[in-house]
Amino acid sequence: MADNLEDYENFRKDMNEEILACGHLGIKRFFALDHQAYEEGALPVKTKELLGLVASAVLRCDDCITYHVQRCAEVGWKRHEVIDALNIVLIVGGSITIPHVRRAFARMREIPALKA
Amino acid sequence: MADNLEDYENFRKDMNEEILACGHLGIKRFFALDHQAYEEGALPVKTKELLGLVASAVLRCDDCITYHVQRCAEVGWKRHEVIDALNIVLIVGGSITIPHVRRAFARMREIPALKA
Amino acid sequence: MADNLEDYENFRKDMNEEILACGHLGIKRFFALDHQAYEEGALPVKTKELLGLVASAVLRCDDCITYHVQRCAEVGWKRHEVIDALNIVLIVGGSITIPHVRRAFARMREIPALKA
Amino acid sequence: MADNLEDYENFRKDMNEEILACGHLGIKRFFALDHQAYEEGALPVKTKELLGLVASAVLRCDDCITYHVQRCAEVGWKRHEVIDALNIVLIVGGSITIPHVRRAFARMREIPALKA
Amino acid sequence: MADNLEDYENFRKDMNEEILACGHLGIKRFFALDHQAYEEGALPVKTKELLGLVASAVLRCDDCITYHVQRCAEVGWKRHEVIDALNIVLIVGGSITIPHVRRAFARMREIPALKA
Amino acid sequence: MADNLEDYENFRKDMNEEILACGHLGIKRFFALDHQAYEEGALPVKTKELLGLVASAVLRCDDCITYHVQRCAEVGWKRHEVIDALNIVLIVGGSITIPHVRRAFARMREIPALKA
Repeated sequence: MADNLEDYENFRKDMNEEILACGHLGIKRFFALDHQAYEEGALPVKTKELLGLVASAVLRCDDCITYHVQRCAEVGWKRHEVIDALNIVLIVGGSITIPHVRRAFARMREIPALKA
Repeated sequence: MADNLEDYENFRKDMNEEILACGHLGIKRFFALDHQAYEEGALPVKTKELLGLVASAVLRCDDCITYHVQRCAEVGWKRHEVIDALNIVLIVGGSITIPHVRRAFARMREIPALKA
Repeated sequence: MADNLEDYENFRKDMNEEILACGHLGIKRFFALDHQAYEEGALPVKTKELLGLVASAVLRCDDCITYHVQRCAEVGWKRHEVIDALNIVLIVGGSITIPHVRRAFARMREIPALKA
Repeated sequence: MADNLEDYENFRKDMNEEILACGHLGIKRFFALDHQAYEEGALPVKTKELLGLVASAVLRCDDCITYHVQRCAEVGWKRHEVIDALNIVLIVGGSITIPHVRRAFARMREIPALKA
Repeated sequence: MADNLEDYENFRKDMNEEILACGHLGIKRFFALDHQAYEEGALPVKTKELLGLVASAVLRCDDCITYHVQRCAEVGWKRHEVIDALNIVLIVGGSITIPHVRRAFARMREIPALKA
Repeated sequence: MADNLEDYENFRKDMNEEILACGHLGIKRFFALDHQAYEEGALPVKTKELLGLVASAVLRCDDCITYHVQRCAEVGWKRHEVIDALNIVLIVGGSITIPHVRRAFARMREIPALKA
């Protein structure tokens, strides 16, 4: 995991630019589809971001958790709601998700709207 | 995957009874915690069931998908909303989840509130 | 796993039709992208199908293995080449993949070009 | 999952024979290494079988669970000890392992030494 | 992975305190159940820690491996016994676990009772 | 992930030496089998390295990706071919593999034959 949110964001931005400029149409389209999946649809944006966070967390991807925790804050989820979602992660995914839940809590320290 | 919803439910009920009666306190408590995780909390029951469905589907567990698809119907999610959640599953989890999404659609045929 | 190749193919065809007709544009586009990923590109079709088989097998998805074993036969891979790819699956994925390798061998019995 | 222990054993024996006779030396050696891993070493056979069961169960492979539950009975583990190991599986792996734990309990019904 | 055992322990302690103080009863109870799963039961503490290590390693969680390697030392497992368990991890989980086995060996350098 | 290729290589070399010298015959044999799996067989070395890369990437192991990206360069794969393989990874494995694809692209910056 990147040591702080800024390092993560810089690396993500830098690499995404390189990937999107690499000339592979399939990859470009997948990134677009990924973006669109979280846009308003039958489900509202807010619900979708929480789904993204839980999916990322049970699959144990720290960068994905960082991304969706940040997005959850942006779309208006409160700290106690994110924590209630992380409880579902713990129950579905078990203790093997605990280190990722720890890092999710650590990331919340860096996000004003989700701070303790 | 059980051939139909009734077979799945009978097997689930039969085995859960045996497991809960087996005398292991830790297992009994885990089943209770699992149940409580989906009760009203900071997040409403309805949201939690959708989180459970998405978590189950990206982790590719057909029985868990069956359970949460059924529960989603019970708490009021509509077919097009469940499908929008399954799209997030496809994007996060990739084509390896397609067979499970197929079986989720097959299960919806057996659930009146989620039928096409 | 479907009991035989025909059952698998019927179920796959039936559900894919329902999914593609369900009206969700994101899902439709993902299915298209999935299809295009295996078309001629920087890598030839033949190589891509073997990559698809190995990816499916280390991720332990029997339906995906069935699909790609069949496709491998169609694009010209021989039995001993598929088996050499399955050895890499065993080494990368470990003994937990053995039941899936067993089922891959069972599927090859149903595919003339890959029979023992 | 095979419907009963005998079907599972027949399929396993049938396919293992075909795989070992297929002429791939690497696969043959991997099967041998897999066998040797559970032989007496720094750890006794009995401990190793329980490790195999827990590894199989958190990785959610029903055939592997069936194999190791049977072997656990053969090397002398008792029902309440196997259940205590399955509790660790539930805690480490979460509720996503519950359907596999159910099937492990179902398999124990077919194994005299592990019956309720 | 934290660079050394002390950094790992400080982060773990810091975050566990925050998580347990966050006011979510379900999370608190899950942490308690997790702790109790490794206490004396039908299986002794020593066996349970080795089960925890193998489960953590096949699921490829470095922090969990660090925790259980340390606990294995505390409850009396010797270096050659831990290594024999890691061999089962390699066989069940395949070469994808090798980087985690490397880090398990690196952690043993920091634990006097498990040093080479 | 190690910060650069040299750190990764030094750590890998250091730990592999310790592991191979630890006296466990099963582990030694598994490392040998792993090595042999990528040698010329029914499939050529070049194809096998690409299979190794895709298997590593869908299983989301950064160190394994680093190893196989490097090996792909050594056996003659070009940047646009590696990228076409990574597209299959994205499609099969979904957006949860994106952070690993980012790190694969970052590693290619350090490998002259695969640079942009």
